[in-house]
Amino acid sequence: MSALDAIAGTAQPGTLYGIGVGPGDVRYLTLRGAGLLRSVDVVAYFSKRGRAGNARTIVAPLLGETCAELKFEYPYTDEIAVADPTYRDAISGFYGETAQQIGEALATGRSVGLLAEGDPFFYSSFMHMWHRLEGDFPVEVVPGVTGMSGCWTRANVPITWGDDILSVLPGTLSEEALAERLGACDAAVIMKVGRNLAKVRRAVTAAGLLDRAIYVERGTMEAERIVPLRDQADQTGPYFAMILIPGRGRRL
Amino acid sequence: MSALDAIAGTAQPGTLYGIGVGPGDVRYLTLRGAGLLRSVDVVAYFSKRGRAGNARTIVAPLLGETCAELKFEYPYTDEIAVADPTYRDAISGFYGETAQQIGEALATGRSVGLLAEGDPFFYSSFMHMWHRLEGDFPVEVVPGVTGMSGCWTRANVPITWGDDILSVLPGTLSEEALAERLGACDAAVIMKVGRNLAKVRRAVTAAGLLDRAIYVERGTMEAERIVPLRDQADQTGPYFAMILIPGRGRRL
Repeated sequence: MSALDAIAGTAQPGTLYGIGVGPGDVRYLTLRGAGLLRSVDVVAYFSKRGRAGNARTIVAPLLGETCAELKFEYPYTDEIAVADPTYRDAISGFYGETAQQIGEALATGRSVGLLAEGDPFFYSSFMHMWHRLEGDFPVEVVPGVTGMSGCWTRANVPITWGDDILSVLPGTLSEEALAERLGACDAAVIMKVGRNLAKVRRAVTAAGLLDRAIYVERGTMEAERIVPLRDQADQTGPYFAMILIPGRGRRL
Repeated sequence: MSALDAIAGTAQPGTLYGIGVGPGDVRYLTLRGAGLLRSVDVVAYFSKRGRAGNARTIVAPLLGETCAELKFEYPYTDEIAVADPTYRDAISGFYGETAQQIGEALATGRSVGLLAEGDPFFYSSFMHMWHRLEGDFPVEVVPGVTGMSGCWTRANVPITWGDDILSVLPGTLSEEALAERLGACDAAVIMKVGRNLAKVRRAVTAAGLLDRAIYVERGTMEAERIVPLRDQADQTGPYFAMILIPGRGRRL
């Protein structure tokens, strides 16, 4: 706080809104999310370097002309391994600086809507801001339709019936660990398939599930692609690829 | 088809919309869901006998005065065990008759929006109608925010970080099976807690997770209640109760 702020006082802090923007189709945004997009002082979002930002692209049809925006470009996305200390240091520093910028906007009384693809509390970058800011500022989280819900909707498969156990598994697990986990559930969603596609396919095959597995790329977005996993011969896929193994539980 | 229909032909069939209404707070309905509620010819929903219907109650603020409604009352909900043949026969017959009534509306060219709590393809009754009708009529499924997303949002806990494995487990599993599955994941959601609460608490305790477990009753709805599981001493809870065990994965 500056000396002047200390004497004169500042405005009530603005609220940080974590807005789940859903899986990709703008129509799957919630009423609350859409209302906030039109009323916050600042819309903030993450993007890969040099890109428009996927979350920003999703909500573009709903944004006013005059809304202030804060764009935060990741120093890395999938160029280097998450376990690499270079990645950890860079991304941790980046999140720290980003939280500081958002905090500065909030401190002047402006509300900030930080976009999160899918649901803000489900594997999202928003959580790294929430973690840093929620002690100091009012926060409202607006849940969203998850990417996986969007994918199973477009693939036209109910994912869980009756008492099915669903496991959500990251494609970053080892082939053995993936195969073992797949053997212990009724239905599964494998996330973060991208560069792990070949390994994930081997694990699904080892678990005897290849015939039930569905590959979904960019579900609900433009250039969506849905094929049986056995027909997807590529060695890698885009970041927004996942594999669905629908449950077969109780049908009444 | 009647002899007259065979001669004169019928209208183009209406579309069946499976509308995910989200976890309870009407503001978490999607734009697409809200748009359909205002434009379908018939709004259809399930309810427990003699009740208003939870899904119908959620969307009440958005329904027009003049919309036709079809209400389907379950012969049983949790009065008898799912494994009981009486339950299976009654519910299977009920779903068959319900699908027939919906099909009759669709066949006359009327569109039907069938409400589903949460997401229509995630443990919902809508699936039993989809299964029976999608071969004969056009169907559009509108994904929704799941009940579990609503619960972890209100509990103010990110559920999965980094490469966390999430398991969604039905509280109907045996105590041993629950404890074993809980030991094999990083984050968990236990659904269908209701009458299984005491057993579920024992399983969570056996898995060494009691201190991390959060009990959420009617998340995002009126009378919402969120407490640490260790402080929830009741032997049973309502149907809309779940237990969250948040992941503790990579924080950058």
